[in-house]
Amino acid sequence: MARDGEARAGVLRTPHGAVQTPAFMPVGTKGTVKGLTPGELHTIGAGIVLGNTYHLYLRPGADLVREAGGLHAFTGWDGPMLTDSGGYQVFSLAKTRRISEKGVEFASVYDGSRHTFTPELVTKVQEGLGADIAMVLDECPPANASREYHQESLRRTARWAGRCKAAHRRSDQALFGIVQGGLYPDLREESLNRTVEIGFPGYAVGGLSVGESREEMLRTLSVTAPMLPADRPRYFMGIGDPVGILQVIRLGVDMFDCVLPTRLARHGAALTAEGRINLRNAGHRRDLGPLDPGCPCEACTGYSRAYLAHLVREDELLGHRLITLHNVRFTVELCRRAREEILAGDYEGWSRAWISRYAGTAA
Amino acid sequence: MARDGEARAGVLRTPHGAVQTPAFMPVGTKGTVKGLTPGELHTIGAGIVLGNTYHLYLRPGADLVREAGGLHAFTGWDGPMLTDSGGYQVFSLAKTRRISEKGVEFASVYDGSRHTFTPELVTKVQEGLGADIAMVLDECPPANASREYHQESLRRTARWAGRCKAAHRRSDQALFGIVQGGLYPDLREESLNRTVEIGFPGYAVGGLSVGESREEMLRTLSVTAPMLPADRPRYFMGIGDPVGILQVIRLGVDMFDCVLPTRLARHGAALTAEGRINLRNAGHRRDLGPLDPGCPCEACTGYSRAYLAHLVREDELLGHRLITLHNVRFTVELCRRAREEILAGDYEGWSRAWISRYAGTAA
Repeated sequence: MARDGEARAGVLRTPHGAVQTPAFMPVGTKGTVKGLTPGELHTIGAGIVLGNTYHLYLRPGADLVREAGGLHAFTGWDGPMLTDSGGYQVFSLAKTRRISEKGVEFASVYDGSRHTFTPELVTKVQEGLGADIAMVLDECPPANASREYHQESLRRTARWAGRCKAAHRRSDQALFGIVQGGLYPDLREESLNRTVEIGFPGYAVGGLSVGESREEMLRTLSVTAPMLPADRPRYFMGIGDPVGILQVIRLGVDMFDCVLPTRLARHGAALTAEGRINLRNAGHRRDLGPLDPGCPCEACTGYSRAYLAHLVREDELLGHRLITLHNVRFTVELCRRAREEILAGDYEGWSRAWISRYAGTAA
Repeated sequence: MARDGEARAGVLRTPHGAVQTPAFMPVGTKGTVKGLTPGELHTIGAGIVLGNTYHLYLRPGADLVREAGGLHAFTGWDGPMLTDSGGYQVFSLAKTRRISEKGVEFASVYDGSRHTFTPELVTKVQEGLGADIAMVLDECPPANASREYHQESLRRTARWAGRCKAAHRRSDQALFGIVQGGLYPDLREESLNRTVEIGFPGYAVGGLSVGESREEMLRTLSVTAPMLPADRPRYFMGIGDPVGILQVIRLGVDMFDCVLPTRLARHGAALTAEGRINLRNAGHRRDLGPLDPGCPCEACTGYSRAYLAHLVREDELLGHRLITLHNVRFTVELCRRAREEILAGDYEGWSRAWISRYAGTAA
């Protein structure tokens, strides 16, 4: 583990291979990073992929995935993988839910059917999915919940974390704890202490990027990250924009995930060194140059902006696919470069210059 | 050119390479075979790809494609390519159209804007698109048009064909004529004679697969095909189902196109040696075997039916993409195999057995 200020460059070892950190985890919500094959994810350098327990539990069902030999065998991705616990989706997607000490009861976003996630169940489900890293069940309260609610919730989340650990059987799967506590530094500290006391091989910072300002997020993270055990991987849940990624890396985060690069692609937006562009804008219609000069990905070397813009406007599958490939590769490459700069001891200067170029000309 | 009964095995030489026939042409309606890259089309053995002049003329516009260096440069497909004249789309898609000796005026399916296709314009547009093979402007009357209308129409189409040939300038592009005449053998003969009299390096049979029964189609083709010059390629417009392909090959057709394999894929239907299956059917949900055993394509070797069925049910891009890849590969491979059997002099027996296996167990 090398450090440059608070920024860290490490290696996360898993049964499916090592991941160089900082690492962006592309999100394969339903067992697929939208539009891309596992082979392409390898080609663009993705080191670790995320799957969503909530979705996979409901569709196609955890039993089927387990019968297929786990999520690796089912999806064909043979590299490192992490599954979330489903907690975030229960709290963000479910129209109705009822939380108790036992767990959380919710209605499926697909068909309204009722289900209950307990710490024991999500642990078992994640063991069946068989990712290299599983997450404890946590509650992710809304950004505007009261201090009292946050305190009550983080204590329940810590109790749930203990139950997850007690239920966890697979020695070839790491179970990570999650720190909550909203925007309250003392509650973050309390949550962190309770979680670290239980003891996990890695820790996530949850409950941020849920509606608060970027400044509030960074301020909260900056008081939380330094308190985390230095020798354990740190996972920031839910950041994927290039500037945000560089900001959380600077505060000592090792891993992060977000649907942003893939979601942007479906809306025709592409990440470039000069900022984000939207290919639906008329200015790109006749641009016969590459999408992002210097990028070696298939979208940038094989096609013009004009062609990609045509595909996007016509809502052609190939457009979604190629822009997704580019955006994920862009984000993965940003992390690879950040790692180099950390190892060179030049992270602060490099990241400031990078952000300035990216944000200065953003469309 | 080898023959086995009426079936033919030949080689079509173009500036972008040779095509072994019989050949299925995947349709890249808007400059993309939906979901696939040119590299994948090469990998699965596609020899020649079709582009639609109607769509490309309207979006992104023929001028832009010409500026980009033509459809090959614009789309990245560097193999043989054919463009239709746009006639078929004008008659099948346009809500309003007005036909005259001059050409056909129509309202764009995209925005209702008014355009006129003349033989001279579609020839010029296709020269700008720069495919290896261009088609004359033809009228494709509805299947139930009167005999009188068909006769009037085929004569106009022949006059248009003459004007297309007169307007055609590119010596590196072949311009094919089109035979019309509905289901009337004598009108087919008249159309054929008028078209052959003008003289083209290849001939298409149009106006079939437009609503008539399969039996009527085959009967009409069987009287038309033998009259076509034996030393010129024969293109049957609009067939893409496996049984139909084998039937038209048997009658002496060399090339054909259809959106069926790609369209089926978007609806979750896959072609297999045992017949067409729909992956939305519950029976495939837990099937951990391959989509089509023995098929070496990425969809069949990298994933289970259960995973593909999951992707299809969730409307995931990767599902459309992989099934499209498989269906196009299946169709291309069927033609490659048909060619082998023609060369071996065993086409009749082989194709009957193939159809029996495919149709006998169709779902």
